[in-house]
Amino acid sequence: MQLGMIGLGRMGANMVRRLLKGGHECVVFDMSPKAVAELVTEKAVGAGSLAEFTKALSKPRAVWLMVPAGVVDKTIADLLPHLEAGDILIDGGNSYYVDDIRRATELKPKSIHYVDVGTSGGVWGLERGYCMMVGGEPDTVKRLEPIFATLAPGLGDIARTPGREKLGGTAEQGWLHCGPNGAGHFVKMVHNGIEYGVMAAYAEGMAVLKAANIGKKGHTVDAETTPLRDPEHYQYDLNLPDIAELWRRGSVIASWLLDLQASALIKDPDLSKFGGRVSDSGEGRWTIKAAIDEGVPAHVLSSALYERFSSRGEADFADKLLSAMRYEFGGHIEKKAGS
Amino acid sequence: MQLGMIGLGRMGANMVRRLLKGGHECVVFDMSPKAVAELVTEKAVGAGSLAEFTKALSKPRAVWLMVPAGVVDKTIADLLPHLEAGDILIDGGNSYYVDDIRRATELKPKSIHYVDVGTSGGVWGLERGYCMMVGGEPDTVKRLEPIFATLAPGLGDIARTPGREKLGGTAEQGWLHCGPNGAGHFVKMVHNGIEYGVMAAYAEGMAVLKAANIGKKGHTVDAETTPLRDPEHYQYDLNLPDIAELWRRGSVIASWLLDLQASALIKDPDLSKFGGRVSDSGEGRWTIKAAIDEGVPAHVLSSALYERFSSRGEADFADKLLSAMRYEFGGHIEKKAGS
Amino acid sequence: MQLGMIGLGRMGANMVRRLLKGGHECVVFDMSPKAVAELVTEKAVGAGSLAEFTKALSKPRAVWLMVPAGVVDKTIADLLPHLEAGDILIDGGNSYYVDDIRRATELKPKSIHYVDVGTSGGVWGLERGYCMMVGGEPDTVKRLEPIFATLAPGLGDIARTPGREKLGGTAEQGWLHCGPNGAGHFVKMVHNGIEYGVMAAYAEGMAVLKAANIGKKGHTVDAETTPLRDPEHYQYDLNLPDIAELWRRGSVIASWLLDLQASALIKDPDLSKFGGRVSDSGEGRWTIKAAIDEGVPAHVLSSALYERFSSRGEADFADKLLSAMRYEFGGHIEKKAGS
Amino acid sequence: MQLGMIGLGRMGANMVRRLLKGGHECVVFDMSPKAVAELVTEKAVGAGSLAEFTKALSKPRAVWLMVPAGVVDKTIADLLPHLEAGDILIDGGNSYYVDDIRRATELKPKSIHYVDVGTSGGVWGLERGYCMMVGGEPDTVKRLEPIFATLAPGLGDIARTPGREKLGGTAEQGWLHCGPNGAGHFVKMVHNGIEYGVMAAYAEGMAVLKAANIGKKGHTVDAETTPLRDPEHYQYDLNLPDIAELWRRGSVIASWLLDLQASALIKDPDLSKFGGRVSDSGEGRWTIKAAIDEGVPAHVLSSALYERFSSRGEADFADKLLSAMRYEFGGHIEKKAGS
Repeated sequence: MQLGMIGLGRMGANMVRRLLKGGHECVVFDMSPKAVAELVTEKAVGAGSLAEFTKALSKPRAVWLMVPAGVVDKTIADLLPHLEAGDILIDGGNSYYVDDIRRATELKPKSIHYVDVGTSGGVWGLERGYCMMVGGEPDTVKRLEPIFATLAPGLGDIARTPGREKLGGTAEQGWLHCGPNGAGHFVKMVHNGIEYGVMAAYAEGMAVLKAANIGKKGHTVDAETTPLRDPEHYQYDLNLPDIAELWRRGSVIASWLLDLQASALIKDPDLSKFGGRVSDSGEGRWTIKAAIDEGVPAHVLSSALYERFSSRGEADFADKLLSAMRYEFGGHIEKKAGS
Repeated sequence: MQLGMIGLGRMGANMVRRLLKGGHECVVFDMSPKAVAELVTEKAVGAGSLAEFTKALSKPRAVWLMVPAGVVDKTIADLLPHLEAGDILIDGGNSYYVDDIRRATELKPKSIHYVDVGTSGGVWGLERGYCMMVGGEPDTVKRLEPIFATLAPGLGDIARTPGREKLGGTAEQGWLHCGPNGAGHFVKMVHNGIEYGVMAAYAEGMAVLKAANIGKKGHTVDAETTPLRDPEHYQYDLNLPDIAELWRRGSVIASWLLDLQASALIKDPDLSKFGGRVSDSGEGRWTIKAAIDEGVPAHVLSSALYERFSSRGEADFADKLLSAMRYEFGGHIEKKAGS
Repeated sequence: MQLGMIGLGRMGANMVRRLLKGGHECVVFDMSPKAVAELVTEKAVGAGSLAEFTKALSKPRAVWLMVPAGVVDKTIADLLPHLEAGDILIDGGNSYYVDDIRRATELKPKSIHYVDVGTSGGVWGLERGYCMMVGGEPDTVKRLEPIFATLAPGLGDIARTPGREKLGGTAEQGWLHCGPNGAGHFVKMVHNGIEYGVMAAYAEGMAVLKAANIGKKGHTVDAETTPLRDPEHYQYDLNLPDIAELWRRGSVIASWLLDLQASALIKDPDLSKFGGRVSDSGEGRWTIKAAIDEGVPAHVLSSALYERFSSRGEADFADKLLSAMRYEFGGHIEKKAGS
Repeated sequence: MQLGMIGLGRMGANMVRRLLKGGHECVVFDMSPKAVAELVTEKAVGAGSLAEFTKALSKPRAVWLMVPAGVVDKTIADLLPHLEAGDILIDGGNSYYVDDIRRATELKPKSIHYVDVGTSGGVWGLERGYCMMVGGEPDTVKRLEPIFATLAPGLGDIARTPGREKLGGTAEQGWLHCGPNGAGHFVKMVHNGIEYGVMAAYAEGMAVLKAANIGKKGHTVDAETTPLRDPEHYQYDLNLPDIAELWRRGSVIASWLLDLQASALIKDPDLSKFGGRVSDSGEGRWTIKAAIDEGVPAHVLSSALYERFSSRGEADFADKLLSAMRYEFGGHIEKKAGS
């Protein structure tokens, strides 16, 4: 079928490529004419403006937005005058699901159908396919099924879950209509929340392995440093690239994130090109807010988020206050780094 | 080569089966004659006593213990009179690595070589192969290489990590000599620590999905209950079996543990046959102790462990004390369950 | 000065009493005529309706609302027709500060001055005085100073902070103009967030003391139970009421919350009359949301909140999923309570 | 009575002073003759060697060690030849209670009585008195009662816990015989574990207050930075010294640690002289180990400990691994500090 794509960054451009390869027709627009031109060479229909873009699409239109969460509302506002009743507007970016609920409500009186799609797969999606979590009205989602089917990974060579053959559904194709508006981004939000937690679990464990030779290092003996009681228990120089590789093979914690670690560690076992300032991009935060609203304990997901905050120095004032209290009650002078 | 196996539970018996299938000769012993008899029908050499067992093995012997961590020391004590200089003793169970260090030191004067093997793979190992983390002297581990090669999963159809072809080594076969005595169980310990963390990340996230319809439920309005500000944001009845399946397909959090969730949820979407009392078996605890000795922050791994404690009611006294304090300062009467 | 009080529950009634005792004039209203009548016997001016209430107040009026957070907006709506430009409306309950910002904005066009007051002190306030955190315009807050001065504890016999004599201000009287609208409830919100964390720290520590005799108890020996390696290290039957009392005397962790624990434990050392279902009342949740918006790590405050969720069984589904995964990968059958 | 004190650092010297003031006789020894000389001018009996020290004490001797935990065993070894059956050896430092159990067992055959005393009060003890947690045999502890009674704060002007008058005991004097050997340091260990948790709760909350003006700051708009949805909710420049002072007055979280914060913040509201590298001195770590052995959840106490680790850069490798994973799956380039 035909799809219009607005936003030709890494994700949007590759989605267009996957759709073209799957036999779909794509009309594309981006603020950067160069991005448009590049996809035109790959058989997409290019547009120089939103007006041109919408004109090139047959009605009812299906328009997919793949732009940063921060500019979705503006893009919709710019696009709206060019849309008509019956058109479908898809937000495939990382919007907060609460915004989806609002947008769907705002667009409803105009009979424009809003669909939210949470997309996982990152830079690997072109090759592996995109895992898509979809929210919207059943009929609208149904109309887009050919698009989702092409973008999704499909069954591939991943083993079938026993019992799934009786259930059917699209989940094992790699896309799912999760529920009404916002449900797609809600599920994607929690997906990312889990992702933070899983990543942190590996990172902490790997750090424990990395420090397994701490018994070989001399320790300062003073009242401010806890001595290691059994240095003979920490004499291991472990090979992290090999261990990550090992665990990919038959262990309980084999995963795609572990594959990535094996790949990163083989290139640079000390990860010396990274400074350790870890960004977080919204979904992790929103997951915690949802957990709190729901009254669901989320120790692990929260800790994973806070570790990212701390990695960027955001714990500094709290830490200073701890040192200040210690100074007040015990006269403890703070130890300097490296001392 | 020839291997003696003591302990024919689920793990030990299946390891023998995999070795026999791989062309090795296995002498087997278990406290239960029935377990021995069963493997004899599958071509293992059975032994009725430790004396018979050691006699059936050619020297220098290689003896693999696959018994509960709590009886390893006793088994070694019973076995020791029958062993000779040059024999190899392998502990393939879930021992604390600190015990490995001690045992290796105790056996050294007798020239008995101790090897510790952490094994992941559970009930799936027979089919998938066992992921093995090995600690011991290089020469001893080398002698056992044929055994490890057969038990391990091998390359299989798991994609090769880019760059691994230049590195070689056994890690991508699914077994690794991690370092001196204790290193195998140390790495396995951290593996399980990570496992707890990863499992908890999924569990918390799934619980957030499960409760996404909380806005549909009426809330008690009283001073003891926090009202939900935006019930319209929590109106989703999400299909967890489908979502677990979906994420297996191209998402960032695809993993073997997710495969297992998809499988569990398809059988019983509400998991109603589980009460939610989660055991922990030592490695998670020891990982935290190591993290603390090393001074490595382990928020996520600790939280995952404590959630298991809480699931078994271990937080009860602390919770009562919280209620008691609330009663003292605010006259808050505790709310009853279901009220 | 004169103050009108709406809401004569535990808090509101006692505040009126403290104001009357301090020589102020109070006009009072409550949905329950009985509550009004009771205070009339103590020299308050009672009102049978909001109209009567506002009529009894001299202009510009000062009206203090001490009603549950959930009915503040409704109460304001009912009251508004009876108010005039220049009147002051004070919300002394546990409102979310975001609502304060909204309300102040809504009331501004009517020239009604909104003041938010976070109040700590609970049932002890009548005697000890109320610690008040105030948000609003400087002039408005200034007009209310006599009220705050009476309600607050004052210097009392609490030692003066060195250096405070040069700074002046009202903080050491026990009330503070924290900033513009919402600032009072924001500071109170974080106060309660801290309160949860401090309470949890004591509760966890006390639970560790309580279980210090665990080495005396027999342990099940099975693969699902981690054996205690050193039972001889856990042979202490500690006297918790005495320890709480002890720490009140010269220890670093002396505090009012510890006083309350000492009091609760002396009455009932096993706290057997509490079931351990701990409520949370909003501020702890909002504190975490603020921390997340600000990017400030809040491991402790979050954990304290989640422990309360868990105490009410809210972790159940996550725990079941953990058991389900364990069953899938290891065939682990869940242990029953008490087994 | 007479007491010998070994170790005249901040703590030991002040304890001697308090004992002398209380009418006791003190024989003192320290590696530094200057420290001895100083106390001699204050009426202590000085000793130039351990031989001289023990000779100066009447039998059976009572010797108090106030030396760093790391040198207690060495000091005991040096002292032992000079001691006799019936003498009492007191360790008043920060020993691990497990060492107390071992030492008591080792000294028993020599009929030397070991007593462990956990002491809280820090530099304030001389003036406020020392809160002491004592472990040892009942008879031995009884003999030392006059010493404990003088060192302890006594009733002072701290309000009596209702019901305490019927119970009696020494707890409200500020010292307590907690149980057999190790019990004193066990209780002190948990005391410090709680202390870490309480401190962290305040520190996190204060950091949330400090960042309450984050809405005034411009935010980078890019895919690596989560935008603040409601900057208008974070416009507060809060006065932390005033707020700490305020909470001392009638709030639920009034405490001695809060007094210290008020004091620290009044001197330096930005705490700019602290770098935020927070030491931990053993007890916090041991508390977690005990919690884990006991199976008691300790989310808050663990988090507080880990925040200290993180403050010293100990999370670095884990953070780098997170960045490395993000780079692998999403091509995310790490943001630099300040960008």
